[in-house]
Amino acid sequence: MIQNNYAVVMAGGVGSRFWPYSRKRFPKQFHDVLGTGKSLLQQTVDRFKGVCLDENIYVVTNEAYKPLVMEQLPFLKDDQVLLEKVGKNTAPCIAYAAYKIQTQNPDANIVTAPSDHIILKEEEYRTRLQVALDASAKDSRIITLGITPNRPDTGYGYIRFEESDSLVKHVLNFTEKPKLEIAKAFVSSGEYVWNAGIFIFKAATIIEAFEKFEPEIVKQFSSISYYGKEEQEQVDKVFLECKEISIDYAVMERAENVYVVLSDIGWSDLGTWKSLYEIQDKDGNANVLDGNIKAYETKNCIIKTPSERLVVTQGLEGFIVAEYDNVLMICKKDDEQEVKKMVNELKSAKADDFI
Amino acid sequence: MIQNNYAVVMAGGVGSRFWPYSRKRFPKQFHDVLGTGKSLLQQTVDRFKGVCLDENIYVVTNEAYKPLVMEQLPFLKDDQVLLEKVGKNTAPCIAYAAYKIQTQNPDANIVTAPSDHIILKEEEYRTRLQVALDASAKDSRIITLGITPNRPDTGYGYIRFEESDSLVKHVLNFTEKPKLEIAKAFVSSGEYVWNAGIFIFKAATIIEAFEKFEPEIVKQFSSISYYGKEEQEQVDKVFLECKEISIDYAVMERAENVYVVLSDIGWSDLGTWKSLYEIQDKDGNANVLDGNIKAYETKNCIIKTPSERLVVTQGLEGFIVAEYDNVLMICKKDDEQEVKKMVNELKSAKADDFI
Repeated sequence: MIQNNYAVVMAGGVGSRFWPYSRKRFPKQFHDVLGTGKSLLQQTVDRFKGVCLDENIYVVTNEAYKPLVMEQLPFLKDDQVLLEKVGKNTAPCIAYAAYKIQTQNPDANIVTAPSDHIILKEEEYRTRLQVALDASAKDSRIITLGITPNRPDTGYGYIRFEESDSLVKHVLNFTEKPKLEIAKAFVSSGEYVWNAGIFIFKAATIIEAFEKFEPEIVKQFSSISYYGKEEQEQVDKVFLECKEISIDYAVMERAENVYVVLSDIGWSDLGTWKSLYEIQDKDGNANVLDGNIKAYETKNCIIKTPSERLVVTQGLEGFIVAEYDNVLMICKKDDEQEVKKMVNELKSAKADDFI
Repeated sequence: MIQNNYAVVMAGGVGSRFWPYSRKRFPKQFHDVLGTGKSLLQQTVDRFKGVCLDENIYVVTNEAYKPLVMEQLPFLKDDQVLLEKVGKNTAPCIAYAAYKIQTQNPDANIVTAPSDHIILKEEEYRTRLQVALDASAKDSRIITLGITPNRPDTGYGYIRFEESDSLVKHVLNFTEKPKLEIAKAFVSSGEYVWNAGIFIFKAATIIEAFEKFEPEIVKQFSSISYYGKEEQEQVDKVFLECKEISIDYAVMERAENVYVVLSDIGWSDLGTWKSLYEIQDKDGNANVLDGNIKAYETKNCIIKTPSERLVVTQGLEGFIVAEYDNVLMICKKDDEQEVKKMVNELKSAKADDFI
């Protein structure tokens, strides 16, 4: 029953590894990163066409970003934009959405997804979602989409699953951000897939899991009068008080009824500049150039700058050059973990205009 | 007699090796390159204080830059700004100034100097100018300032002089832009100095030299009614028609009465980014940083960017990073001869907004 299907899009984060493009006042999900004419958020929502009805799409975001969400998704009603007073990671966010949606529809079957990833094979994605939604509707199962890894990335979570003939395979355990040697072993074993952060469950199922593992969160979010006129005030209070915890730690790694649907969907979390570099078309010198750029003797670079400025490079190899608003960054592509450090230093220095 | 001393400041060029800072609409000489609060042009004019009177300072420039000159040097009267319809290198420029000044004062003794060089030892410069002016006033001599070379730079002109006890030494010959091996030999011989492009002569002396070597230029510039109401129209016509030639080729390399005053005056033509790098203070990693710049693991770079933009670099070694107006350039410091090529390509592409 499509009427029971809901999408919860999480759009409250900033994505600081993608700085200076992803900024506090204009995070990554609101950018048209790939130059398709649609922001990552708009693409994420578009992908739910045929999976659930427009009125069943909810976006959870920080109150600061509500105007951006309403501007980019004008079909949303006020009630479909859920506001976090402060971000407390994914578990409180999902608890809020699950309780609110369950108030409206006790049979609700929910997909939760980040708003800032890309999925190149949209049809395949919808097919896999349908498999997961059918399974979660039938039983009390929590289902994730698992991506077959093509490299030993140490930035992702890995899911070990039990091989079976079913499309919906039982999850044995999660390993968050393994060391390189372990990641290599995981990839070559064939028993592991990446956790894409896309989860499918009935509202009742996830609430049951919260009751088992996070009773404090249940106490906090079940006390709210959803759709009442005090809702926002109560939600704000709960977000200020509740603990900060991811859905992975709170539920996924502890529950027994977690399953995975293997999905070859052209997924990337676009978490870093390098991941954007990997998925894009290159010129003859392995450069990804997005802007008004003249590149001489320039190789293996990703350059993304405003088109109104001419950028001329010469002799540059293996660099990220990114200009956005009032920041220009030039950083070695292989050292891109430094980007997060740079942003943290700016935070410490309270250089708010630049983060 | 200080009343007979005149300065002719040549401010019509663009300095394309200093791109993107030096631009057609705002060439290098109008910039406060060193952040002293004064443009190179203003500094050049200031250096003549005590050498000649304000009313004896003439600036020769392209008509497009007249507003900039008047803005930066508001004490100049209209008649002190000489306009070239089109730039024809230094010989026509100097001929124009010499004829005009001679009309006013037949005993005029002139210093001509580029507007976009720097001279760190100003007192020493003035002392050397006085030596040259005294000598040129007395005899029909053309005098240049010669800079003791500290490296075999292949971008400069070299002057070979006859050793003598006099401060004003006879010039044997000029060699423009020698090959590296020759430049090395010149420097180690001790018989050569750099031509700084600063010349001292009486108006009558240089006109005599033009009469001998460039009769066509004499015919053109002597036909003008200086200080008449047709002057500009006649000058424009002459500039459109006259040949393009430097004073070095037209006179210096051919005349017998050329002398040099050796001058240790902290001179740099600031011709290239590297020359700016050389003269400036470095941080602990040998970087010259001018802007709002955070440099991580960055060495031997010169970075000059607008202070309103935060620039973060990581892993960059031996580069020029220069942003001005609508252009950002990132170029290897050792390959800076490429800068001129880049500008020429933009010229060929008629990308006028960026040059």
